[in-house]
Amino acid sequence: MVNETQHPCSASSSSKSDGGSSSGSESSKDSSRCSTPVLDAERHERLRERMRRRQDSGDRWFSLEFFPPRTANAAVNLISRFDRMAAGGPLFIDVTWHPAGDPGSDKETSSMIIANTAVNYCGLETILHMTCCNQSKDDITGHLQKAKRLGLKNIMALRGDPVGEEWEEEVHGFNYAVDLVKHIRSEFDDYFDICVAGYPTGHPEAESYEADLKHLKEKVLAGADFIITQLFFRSETFLKFMKDCQAIGITCPIIPGIFPIQGYHSLRQLVKLSKLEVPQEIKDVIEPIKDNDAAIRNYGVELAVSMCRELLDSGVVHGLHFYTLNREVATTEVLKRLGIWNEDPRRPLPWAVSAHPKRRVEDVRPIFWASRPKSYIYRTQEWDDFPNGRWGNSSSPAFGELKDYYLFYLKSKSPREELLKMWGEELTGEESVFEVFTCYITGEPNKNGHKVTCMPWNDDPLATETSLLKEQLEKVNRRGILTINSQPNINGKPSTDPVVGWGPSGGYVFQKAYLEFFTSSEIVTALLKVLKKYETRVNYHIVNVKGQNITNAPDLQPNAVTWGIFPGREIIQPTVVDPVSFLSWKDEAFALWIEQWAKLYEEESPSRMIIQYIHDNYYLVNLVDNDFPLENCLWQVVDDTFELLN
Amino acid sequence: MVNETQHPCSASSSSKSDGGSSSGSESSKDSSRCSTPVLDAERHERLRERMRRRQDSGDRWFSLEFFPPRTANAAVNLISRFDRMAAGGPLFIDVTWHPAGDPGSDKETSSMIIANTAVNYCGLETILHMTCCNQSKDDITGHLQKAKRLGLKNIMALRGDPVGEEWEEEVHGFNYAVDLVKHIRSEFDDYFDICVAGYPTGHPEAESYEADLKHLKEKVLAGADFIITQLFFRSETFLKFMKDCQAIGITCPIIPGIFPIQGYHSLRQLVKLSKLEVPQEIKDVIEPIKDNDAAIRNYGVELAVSMCRELLDSGVVHGLHFYTLNREVATTEVLKRLGIWNEDPRRPLPWAVSAHPKRRVEDVRPIFWASRPKSYIYRTQEWDDFPNGRWGNSSSPAFGELKDYYLFYLKSKSPREELLKMWGEELTGEESVFEVFTCYITGEPNKNGHKVTCMPWNDDPLATETSLLKEQLEKVNRRGILTINSQPNINGKPSTDPVVGWGPSGGYVFQKAYLEFFTSSEIVTALLKVLKKYETRVNYHIVNVKGQNITNAPDLQPNAVTWGIFPGREIIQPTVVDPVSFLSWKDEAFALWIEQWAKLYEEESPSRMIIQYIHDNYYLVNLVDNDFPLENCLWQVVDDTFELLN
Repeated sequence: MVNETQHPCSASSSSKSDGGSSSGSESSKDSSRCSTPVLDAERHERLRERMRRRQDSGDRWFSLEFFPPRTANAAVNLISRFDRMAAGGPLFIDVTWHPAGDPGSDKETSSMIIANTAVNYCGLETILHMTCCNQSKDDITGHLQKAKRLGLKNIMALRGDPVGEEWEEEVHGFNYAVDLVKHIRSEFDDYFDICVAGYPTGHPEAESYEADLKHLKEKVLAGADFIITQLFFRSETFLKFMKDCQAIGITCPIIPGIFPIQGYHSLRQLVKLSKLEVPQEIKDVIEPIKDNDAAIRNYGVELAVSMCRELLDSGVVHGLHFYTLNREVATTEVLKRLGIWNEDPRRPLPWAVSAHPKRRVEDVRPIFWASRPKSYIYRTQEWDDFPNGRWGNSSSPAFGELKDYYLFYLKSKSPREELLKMWGEELTGEESVFEVFTCYITGEPNKNGHKVTCMPWNDDPLATETSLLKEQLEKVNRRGILTINSQPNINGKPSTDPVVGWGPSGGYVFQKAYLEFFTSSEIVTALLKVLKKYETRVNYHIVNVKGQNITNAPDLQPNAVTWGIFPGREIIQPTVVDPVSFLSWKDEAFALWIEQWAKLYEEESPSRMIIQYIHDNYYLVNLVDNDFPLENCLWQVVDDTFELLN
Repeated sequence: MVNETQHPCSASSSSKSDGGSSSGSESSKDSSRCSTPVLDAERHERLRERMRRRQDSGDRWFSLEFFPPRTANAAVNLISRFDRMAAGGPLFIDVTWHPAGDPGSDKETSSMIIANTAVNYCGLETILHMTCCNQSKDDITGHLQKAKRLGLKNIMALRGDPVGEEWEEEVHGFNYAVDLVKHIRSEFDDYFDICVAGYPTGHPEAESYEADLKHLKEKVLAGADFIITQLFFRSETFLKFMKDCQAIGITCPIIPGIFPIQGYHSLRQLVKLSKLEVPQEIKDVIEPIKDNDAAIRNYGVELAVSMCRELLDSGVVHGLHFYTLNREVATTEVLKRLGIWNEDPRRPLPWAVSAHPKRRVEDVRPIFWASRPKSYIYRTQEWDDFPNGRWGNSSSPAFGELKDYYLFYLKSKSPREELLKMWGEELTGEESVFEVFTCYITGEPNKNGHKVTCMPWNDDPLATETSLLKEQLEKVNRRGILTINSQPNINGKPSTDPVVGWGPSGGYVFQKAYLEFFTSSEIVTALLKVLKKYETRVNYHIVNVKGQNITNAPDLQPNAVTWGIFPGREIIQPTVVDPVSFLSWKDEAFALWIEQWAKLYEEESPSRMIIQYIHDNYYLVNLVDNDFPLENCLWQVVDDTFELLN
């Protein structure tokens, strides 16, 4: 929105509020008790309701603005940034719209796809910007329909920059943001929450500050739910603007747009685009240090912090909107210093909840995708019902196909050269592979001095929780039990536990011990003998790439391996080992050997053939120790297996 | 079946097997994972499948035959007997059909209604007998449709006694059991499991033993699933019969009918009806002791035990069918001595599961009806979905009306005089009522020397589990906290625990402490002050007869208070405190004061007015301590309340 402009001339002055206050049927509670217990009231609320609730409760919040990146690689990085910044607990993020960049397309870098990724895969409440200038009604309706289909529920309605030098009003076209607001309300009723832009110093092209306020009021009357302002340099500017808005009867939330100065160059560019004037006192500080990036950023952070404090202390500001310029450090620092960066937000469930409205009752997933949650969301995106998985019926094509390797946001973040350094330029045998797994677990560098920070099945370093099992994991990987997923047993830890806790406070969380690994058929033969001793205590599924499947699970029933008990609620069991979905996961887990690892090497090369051999001959095994109150017996199972082999 | 006859003359000799082997679509597993985890494979199987499975696994089983009683009081007693004999784990019971007794009607004593009660309210797999002689096709179809509607899935197809002296074959009518079997298969396809009668010594009216065997084969070919035999006096008789059946190609299960001789008179009557001959060696023993009932019964038990042992030892008999004559002692003793009375059958859930096919996925109920399970089943009989309760939507008329006081099988088993002795011929004040509650808890006689063995809210003495809380319950009832339901907290006891265990072995069961009581508004005022201290630890619902409702439950969500974790399964939470159904329970709980207690006294009598006062002014309260791993705090809550009042 930073470089957004608005034509100030008289537009349609309809004062009809067609939808802004009608009750949203989408937000009504589901009545079946089989559906999700509402863990987190926010999951079921629309953005405007959440905003109201935060305002009423006096909670302070923030939001973050991003623009779509230029390249696919930059998009992968931006999405990692989304994940990291999501940890701070923004109320929402928004993604800008650039008509020249094919913003509604399916390109990896389009506004539409970036917003889609944020809402579906990163679980972020997301506002998609949309401009209307020089666009046909049909195009705009098409974009809105697509946004709705992708699960986007919030639109920032803007005019956009006129294309070309000379711009003339079209008689029945979209000339102003208010036309877009009206169009959304008339075509989509109350489906979308609508945000519009406010200009604390008046729009640069407006006849006057007062005329601009009137245009803002028209946008609100047309159905906008809240206002985000253009940036400003002094808190008084915003506070006066807010007062003036209220004076003419604008009562919806008005959120100040904060721009932490991050560099001399970006500030200059911004000033040029926004036609704002930088106050002399700021120029005086910046000019002398213009070649010292760090100094400018420090100053920008100081300035933003003090302005934000003034705004929050005023008592009329509850939320702050940050123009991040797709950068992380300055904004995060401002938020931390203000104390509104929520370092350790309570997890409503042990996995990140998708923000897609269709998935808001989702409360159970198979454990297999624990390290590949985006892949799970992608492969189940066509499902209509949650938590009703399609796992029960193994004959139905429940899971989307394995095209995800080609999806940019599911690819490894690391380039080929780096992966080769981690996983070996040249493999000499299965033992070289054992070594890679072991280094990933221990965090020690491999024999060429490179740390192994990711694996085909896990794009991130070992989870904190898994670290609890490090010693045992190291031992078994060294011997060819190549672990890709595990969790310790937990017998009733408080739901507020910093490592394993999730859900509302006052509850208790539980886990059954879980271990998943690839291993040779020789080890599997011994393992099966050992497992006989454990009878029903240990459930197992053992499968090879051809789908040969050995299990002692009763009747293809899912086994709950993570659950929680909370005050005044039903039991919640967010993670299961499900025998049917395991067969879909098996395809993905085996394919990752080839797609992510074997293909790093030349065809017919010995290294590639080693990975291919493992892919063709190893088994994927999962084990659950059902006796969660006792000490985890899975290590004993593995020890017994090795002993039998000796 | 004891007094059943069959005409031996040539009947339709169709050998078409129209349905007996088609696969039952009703028995296919539900595919949605939201539905019940299959705790007990038997719950989802048809009777014929269970029988096969027991046979394959070598398990021995028994079944019990009853006839419909003559009076409503006798029906109430018979149903108590069903409940007691259900504890021994019969594979099924069957209810005979007496054309003269209006067997298909809605009378309390009809075969149809007794069978309905057994299947729905007692949770017994039930076979309804049906005869066809002298009945129209439409009547028979009507009976079958009604049986299906009531949840009956098994029919014993019989000819029945011809009415009147002279009986002639009707050309297109139902002349033989085989006609009924064909009719059921042609009209209801494979819906019903069909049983037919076999005669080990040949039917008395048959041309010959061989001709009778052929008729039996015709019945099987027409679609019968298994055979139950007429009684016999020597094991050789049955074993020869079985061999002869197999020789002519009858391969379905054949179950021997066992008649433990229980008295001289009943044996004589039976012999007359069945036209069987009692062997001389039995006559020789019985005649001398014919006036000594106990001696005859002892002999009958001995005889039955030794004959059953011979049958079971033969290796070809897996199940035994008992003609109980509606009596309990002799059959139970035979079963116990044979070691097939399953004294402590594993409970699949903490409450008795209904055998209605519609309810076989039911796995959760509100705790309120814990002592009135038949009332819960009655009031939810119109529901289409289980476990989807209708609790979520408080505006819908989810629960059947309170007509159940008029249903014979939901009335108190005790007559008015006995209730007056227990609950007081004359009440002198609220304290007299406190005294009744206290005596029920302690098991001590009241001041008139009578033990209080039931209450309006509980027709049985205190449950074993509740006895764990006896001391505290006594203390609070004495002071006017009139408890009607409670459970202790349990933090992970083995599912095989004899008192609180349920579900498959190898699991763990949990409970939150629960307490439900009536109390005065004075105590409620103090209680509410005390509860503030406990915040979310204790959830409460407090309501009076007018429906004034005070609660701290979040969003009308159910609170799980009993759950279990089992090997290889999802979490099971069979009992919840549900705020919406509580309002339906409230109506029933308050109405019981009037219907069962106040109405014992004359109108306008002081005793009646005391109960009426309590009904009008007291509150119904339920409390849940959410912190199940800690010591139950509910007693502290009550103590604090009394302290505040002092």
